[in-house]
Parts: sequence; C-alpha cells; structure tokens
Amino acid sequence: MTSDRARLCLPSARSDVPAFMVMDVMSAAARLEQAGRHVVHMEVGQPEAPAPSTALAAARAALSGSGAALGYTESLGIPSLRERIARHYAETYGEAVDPSSVLVTTGSSAAFVLAFLALLEPGDRVALSVPAYPPYRHILTALGCVPVLIRTGPEARYAMTPEALLAAHREAPLKAVLIASPANPTGTMMTPDALAALIATAEDAGIAVISDEIYHGLDYAFPATTALTTSRKTVVINSFSKYFCMTGWRVGWIVAPDALVRPMERLHQNLAISVPTLSQVAAEAAFDGRAEMEAVKAGYARNREILTTGLPACGLDRFLPVDGAFYLYADVSAFTPDSHAFARALLEEAGVAATPGLDFDPDEGHRWVRFSYARSQADMIEAVARIGRWLKGTG
Amino acid sequence: MTSDRARLCLPSARSDVPAFMVMDVMSAAARLEQAGRHVVHMEVGQPEAPAPSTALAAARAALSGSGAALGYTESLGIPSLRERIARHYAETYGEAVDPSSVLVTTGSSAAFVLAFLALLEPGDRVALSVPAYPPYRHILTALGCVPVLIRTGPEARYAMTPEALLAAHREAPLKAVLIASPANPTGTMMTPDALAALIATAEDAGIAVISDEIYHGLDYAFPATTALTTSRKTVVINSFSKYFCMTGWRVGWIVAPDALVRPMERLHQNLAISVPTLSQVAAEAAFDGRAEMEAVKAGYARNREILTTGLPACGLDRFLPVDGAFYLYADVSAFTPDSHAFARALLEEAGVAATPGLDFDPDEGHRWVRFSYARSQADMIEAVARIGRWLKGTG
Repeated sequence: MTSDRARLCLPSARSDVPAFMVMDVMSAAARLEQAGRHVVHMEVGQPEAPAPSTALAAARAALSGSGAALGYTESLGIPSLRERIARHYAETYGEAVDPSSVLVTTGSSAAFVLAFLALLEPGDRVALSVPAYPPYRHILTALGCVPVLIRTGPEARYAMTPEALLAAHREAPLKAVLIASPANPTGTMMTPDALAALIATAEDAGIAVISDEIYHGLDYAFPATTALTTSRKTVVINSFSKYFCMTGWRVGWIVAPDALVRPMERLHQNLAISVPTLSQVAAEAAFDGRAEMEAVKAGYARNREILTTGLPACGLDRFLPVDGAFYLYADVSAFTPDSHAFARALLEEAGVAATPGLDFDPDEGHRWVRFSYARSQADMIEAVARIGRWLKGTG
Repeated sequence: MTSDRARLCLPSARSDVPAFMVMDVMSAAARLEQAGRHVVHMEVGQPEAPAPSTALAAARAALSGSGAALGYTESLGIPSLRERIARHYAETYGEAVDPSSVLVTTGSSAAFVLAFLALLEPGDRVALSVPAYPPYRHILTALGCVPVLIRTGPEARYAMTPEALLAAHREAPLKAVLIASPANPTGTMMTPDALAALIATAEDAGIAVISDEIYHGLDYAFPATTALTTSRKTVVINSFSKYFCMTGWRVGWIVAPDALVRPMERLHQNLAISVPTLSQVAAEAAFDGRAEMEAVKAGYARNREILTTGLPACGLDRFLPVDGAFYLYADVSAFTPDSHAFARALLEEAGVAATPGLDFDPDEGHRWVRFSYARSQADMIEAVARIGRWLKGTG
C-alpha cells in the first residue's frame, strides 16, 4: 500500500521533455539585474515593441463595452478574424485562401499541438531541420511521435534538401516534415525555389508538409514565400507574436487542407474550447497597424546591419546567413568548446544575455550561440561594444 | 504515387473525437434568431454576466501603459497571480497552499491536457463518473488514454462511490480518477464525507486523483470542499471561467503535488510558452470583485428556485439534485425516448435551447436534457412558461 501511494505523483515518461534553456538564461539575467547590473537582452525571442496601436485600441474598445462580449467564441475563431486572415494571404502573397480553411489558435504553440494530433499517430516519424525551435521535438515526443533530425549545412544555405529528406524517408518512412523559413534559431531562409522543391518532393513521397511561417514579414535578404503557393495540401502555421509584436496575447492561426479542418475543429472544441476573445479582437485590428510594424521591421534591419558589421570587427565573424526573423546564429567554436559556458561568461562578465545553441541542437549546439536583435538600436551598439571588449580581454 | 498523395491530408485516428453537441444546438439557436425568432438560451455553460469590474479595470490599466508589459510571462504564470491564487485557498477553505505549487493555465482546458500528459502514459485507464463533461473523455482518448465510465445513481446522490471505483480497479488497474463536484452536466455535488472517502480509497489503492473544482463558489445545497483538504497528493484544477464569469479570457490554474510541478512546467514551456498576459492581469484583480460575483451567484440561486418549483408544475418533475454550478439535469424519458429530438423540438417549437444528454452520457443520455440557468431571472420565468405551454401542447 505504501508503494502504491508512493507512485501517486510519479510523473509520466512522456512528461520527461527538456526545459527551454533560454528560460534559464532569462532567470540568470534577471538575477544580475536585481543585483544592480545592466544587461543587454539578446536572449529572448520576442520584440521589445508593443502590439500595433490599432490592436491596443480595439482591445480597449472591447473592454469599454458591457464586457459581455468576452464570452467563448466559435471554436474555429471569430468569423471576421478568420476572414481577415484569409484576406491577408491575398494581400501579401496573391494567394486566395477560403476563410473556412482558417483556424484561430492560442499562439502557434497550440497550433502545433493541434496539427500534430490531427495528422500524426503515435510512433509516426517527423523530419525536422537541426538546429530548430526546441518545442518542435518536445511537443512531438510528448505526443508519442518521433522527431527525425536532419542536419543542414552551408552547401544548401542551411536548409533541408530534398535529397536529405528522401534519405531519411528510405531509412524508415516519414509521416510528415516540418519546415520553417525564416528559421529560429538561425534566422536563415529557404529560397522560393528550394522551398517549392522540398514541398514537391515531400508530397510526391507521401510525406505531409507542415510549414511554420511565424517569422514571415520579417525578411531582409529576399521576400518569404508561403508554402500555400506550392501546395494546398500543406498545413501552414503562423502567429501574431513576431511580426505584429503580440507574444503575450497568445494568438496564432492554421491554414489547413479541407480534410483536416473538421478534425482540427473537433480537437480544438475539446482541448481548448476557444481562443481568448480579447486577443482575437486585437489580432483582427492588428492588420490595420502594418505601417507601424514596418517601422519596427526597419529597426530590426538596422540592428541586423549593426551586428553583421560590428561582430566581425570583434572577431566573431562566423555566422549563418542572416536572412530573416531577428536572430543571428554565431559559431563561437574559435573561442570555446562549450557555448553554454561561453554564454554564461558573456552574461556575467560582459552583461550581454544570449542563448547557447544546445537548446536548438543537442549534438552541435556546443559550438553555437543565438543572438536576438529584436530590441533597440542603442542596445545593439552597446552589445557590440561589450562583446568586442570582452572578446579582446578573454580572446 | 497517387495513393501516397491521397493520404497526405488523412486525419489521424486519434483526431476522431466527437464534436461538442452543445455547439450544434448553439448553431441551430443562432439560425432561428437570424430568422427573427426569440430564443431563451439554456444550452450554453457560461455566465451571462461580465467579468468583475475589478478585472476589467485591471485589463484596461494594463492596456493604457506602453503595452510593452504584454510580452510572455513566466511559464508557470505571473508570480503575484500565483501568490493570489494560493491565498484564495487560505481565505476560502482554510488550507495553506504554497504559491510554488500553483501553475496558471489557459483555462481549465489546458490544465486537463497538462495534467493528463504529466501523470498518464498512453494506455492508462482513468475512471470518470458518467454523465460527465465530454472533453474529459475526448482529451483522454486523443492522448492515448482509456476513459473508464462509472455510472452513478440515486443511492449515492449521483456521485461515484469507493466501491464502484474499486470494482473498476479490479477489472483492470486504474491509473487515475477524475472527480468533479459540483459536476457538469448534473449540477450535483459530493458531500464532504463522500468526497473524502473516495479520495482516500483511490489513493490507498494507488489511483491518482484529479479534482475538477471549476464550479467551486457556485454551491447552493452545502459548501463545496476542496480535495486538498483530504490529500496533498491530489491534482486540483480550477478556472476563472465560471464563478468569476471569465469564460472568454481562458485563464485557469492547477494546484499540483510538488513532484509534478517541474514536469508540468517543462511541458507548459514547450506546449504553450505562457498564458495570455492580459488574462492573467485581469484574473489577479478578479479576486477583488468577489462581492459583485456573490450578487451574480444570488441571481443563480433565484433562477434555481424558479426552475425547481416551475418545472415540476409543468410536469417536468424528475431531475438530479440541483446542488451547485448552474445546471439542472432533467429526465425527459416520460415525454420521449430521444432527448436529442426533444431538445430540437423544444428549440424549434418553443424557442428554448437546451442540451441533450448524449453529449455527456453516450449510453443513457437519450433520456436526459441539461438546462443551464446562468442567465437572467426574466429568461428563467419565460423559459418555464414556454416549456409549460409546449409540454401541455405535446404531452
């Protein structure tokens, strides 16, 4: 009986997913700040800028009414928001999307859970590029699926190639492939041709494509293309968090093939009921704030310039193509065999918080550090100065 | 190759969960209203009243600042909200709860997903009372677990008994049991003694207890007791949706045993990142709006009185103990062998929307209809009048 009681609170095997290492860096940075130190934050993957003023105004307006309108919404999302998202595809990519294929989700996080549950059985293999956003593989394992990590390299601009995908598929059949362009943590993008070729290869082989387009809109090297241009069998995931600076609002969306909309709706009814109403109202109005967001993006472009010229001058001259999102992924192996120790020392000694690559790449991450440039220009200039002094001192 | 492409958008087996039937009733009611008919809404499980004015004011205040404070929060929730929730247990139940054992979630919906993933392996059997809230069993099956439905009856006030639990455990071992008091759809409650006995029996047998306390605060027959009074190994789930009238804000919480907090935190970091920030800010302030919510509750008590006296006068005199929440679960088998057809006719012919029991009870639900009394007193009086006229006409 004692042993029975002892196992009452035993966590499940599937809950044994790693924590997000970036959270530890954030905590360490916060401790330094509490002790009076100044820290330049390049660890967090979120914009410093607030949501568009149009979004904030819409939320305020919704709150100034009786408040009764803040009940559950339809599980698929507020119809006018779904229509507005559909129109966004026509405006941005020239692609006609039917509002009935749009599902509003509680951030892209919930969209991944929903897409994986709707498409994948336990045991299904899913190909991912590595390095990659850590929750991809941790959500997959929590849901009983098998992430298959495909290493990318300079020969294909750090994108997954059709050949690499098919090689993994020959080892054991893949059920799906997850593509992200621009990618986190690397900030690299797939060229439109490379993206189209990968999707066509996957679908010809019977491998379903999930395209994470959360960093769309934040492209500097060339315009990002949506997977929908190549195929309407692709599941596209996006969010208001990054381009629209609405991380804490937790609102994203899926564009799904017809056959998956109803299964996803049923899952959503049961797993979430609906997405926070105020967030949906704000999100719809966010589309009217694009001019503001373009100004924010211009700031990222300037920050990118500061880093891509400033860091090499400090000796930190090996990094991946800085195409989009707001990340620069730097190879620090010339300075250290241990990027985690490097990041800790950079924080403690130089007051610059950055994320070690192990979060994103369990095998090679010890060579890499991710710098986020979603904050102010002054922060970027200060960061380059601090990193330069610090590397000179330790280098 | 064609067959490969054909299966690209094939939904997974685990996505084959039933829809929420109440959603269909809502759609049918909306169609009638668009056609100019007046409908009394007794189908939806949500308060008509808005969130406490303290919550709305806090949200407005958060929006009037720079907006920059609306980024991600700590994954476990805003520390001051976790502290406030912990204090709620001292104030309401006289139970000391450490804020470190509180996790803020995106409604109780996300809390169930998190608790099930953290506690249960695929294949694990979980006991539930039937009738029950439909997503319990649908989330479980989507996550590969096996709901074990335990029928309740009048001899134990429609609560699961220790004997019934142990009988199911002997058939094949149970990993967990899910308890809800007050319950949805029945509105019945477990007496403090019955609740304590069930928890003790379960935990002695090595069966983990998950206690859904979402309808706490809405008790009319006798005060609801938290499972934490009996055991600190219980996982307690609650939400701001019902008592605090904040359904569309999607904010709830878990009080977890120490050993499960970190696994749940890691899952939450990966599956959700954090809960909508504005909802957390509003939720913390909601606790200051209890006087307002007590007035709302007094309205439910009056509504309950109207139904429990009015419906028997109409001939609808068989229903379960109307102890708490805002539901009355009525046996309509004297009028129909098919509660779904009954509910449809009641809506179309009498303009009263209610939910057929099949949503909550696949086997016996054809005999039952759930009436929600979370709306105005005038609506309840009108509903009784309409039901009375209609039953006289058809009965």
